[in-house]
Amino acid sequence: MIFRYKITVEYLGTNLAGWQRQENSLSVQQIIEEAIVKVTGEIVNVIGAGRTDAGVHALGQVAHFDLSRKYEPDKLLASLNFFMRPHPVGINACKLVDNDFHARFDAKQRYYKYLIINRQAEPVLLKNKVWWIRASLDTESMSKACQYFIGKHDFNSFRAKHCQAKSSIRTISNLSVQNAGDKISVYISAQSFLHHMVRNIVGTLVEVGLSRRSPHDIPIILESKTRSAAGRTAPAHGLCFTKVEY
Amino acid sequence: MIFRYKITVEYLGTNLAGWQRQENSLSVQQIIEEAIVKVTGEIVNVIGAGRTDAGVHALGQVAHFDLSRKYEPDKLLASLNFFMRPHPVGINACKLVDNDFHARFDAKQRYYKYLIINRQAEPVLLKNKVWWIRASLDTESMSKACQYFIGKHDFNSFRAKHCQAKSSIRTISNLSVQNAGDKISVYISAQSFLHHMVRNIVGTLVEVGLSRRSPHDIPIILESKTRSAAGRTAPAHGLCFTKVEY
Repeated sequence: MIFRYKITVEYLGTNLAGWQRQENSLSVQQIIEEAIVKVTGEIVNVIGAGRTDAGVHALGQVAHFDLSRKYEPDKLLASLNFFMRPHPVGINACKLVDNDFHARFDAKQRYYKYLIINRQAEPVLLKNKVWWIRASLDTESMSKACQYFIGKHDFNSFRAKHCQAKSSIRTISNLSVQNAGDKISVYISAQSFLHHMVRNIVGTLVEVGLSRRSPHDIPIILESKTRSAAGRTAPAHGLCFTKVEY
Repeated sequence: MIFRYKITVEYLGTNLAGWQRQENSLSVQQIIEEAIVKVTGEIVNVIGAGRTDAGVHALGQVAHFDLSRKYEPDKLLASLNFFMRPHPVGINACKLVDNDFHARFDAKQRYYKYLIINRQAEPVLLKNKVWWIRASLDTESMSKACQYFIGKHDFNSFRAKHCQAKSSIRTISNLSVQNAGDKISVYISAQSFLHHMVRNIVGTLVEVGLSRRSPHDIPIILESKTRSAAGRTAPAHGLCFTKVEY
């Protein structure tokens, strides 16, 4: 008999190697899997909805794993959280799901938030959680540029060189820029993303905000299907994987 | 000739002894004053709008100090921030003001925000910045209780034993509870507060949220003018001094 557990995971990515297990550095996946061994004695493979990069944070990463025994989900959550301390990884929610649930393949929509602080002074309270940009950003231009990304496009210009996806066609459901004082939040959602796609889009939006590019350049960049046509990759530490819908 | 500078200060209070200089532990005031000596060679007394407790954070503490020379405010800000690193203290804004400006005495309104996370799992991303409460809080009751605090009252039941203010009469302009998912934010503003007053009010509101007290108990607690009649002092780490108006 197999019992499948769905977990929602929060982590501060600053000193972690990202979601996926690595040879020589500590990943979120490894931290969770080691806690599962300690609690249950079972060696499992935890499958996440998104393989976030080193430095990227999560508030609502979702993952699943199988155990041969049935645990009370809230107790399992508390025990796993206990054994994960002091690592900056925590499980917010845990429940038993059908054995055909798949955290990665069944995801209908993935949500990310990218946070920018736009001011002269270095951030203190949000250190390691935002991209600090001193030069003033024109958020109206950034918002205009967003419109060109929404919908189904070939995002070859916005994926990492080593991205392994077969197709570079993706559909962005929402992309918006909101500002409140010196905080600029970029919200983006899609069923799935290419490697570095969110960070490359944000990096390009920031170049629009700095007036180095115009919003009207976006369709041209998309059409070129060439990575070098787009902007730089935004730093990992401003990015947070906020939610997955199934 | 004297030049008076007004600064807006952000800090993560976790490992600090609070605003005010202490004999044997590091305070925000000391960190700023030492940076001023390094930048200007002048030994000054930095006067803050509020003497926040150890562990309390600030996003918009305001302070002033005098120098015998005129500095370009943005350059002074950058130099002070440089010398304050790696301490978790930063100056967000700096400007020259009239010599009769006083950060403490001229404050018209002080704003605080208290953040609570109400869920089973320990917070990771907001560690050290929130009060984590597992038992479910009834925020409607908390909102009802808020109404009794607003206005001019004798807050003797809500001040620390060692509070040195002559009068315990204060006027709360606003007190509200907002929740978004598992985050509960308590916003409070007044021209001035008694020692521990915000934390004692939040501690009492939480006891209302836990149904250990009723909103209707608040006027009785206020009238008793006895500290022991009110609830516990909420932990310092959930509190943030957000803004001062002049």
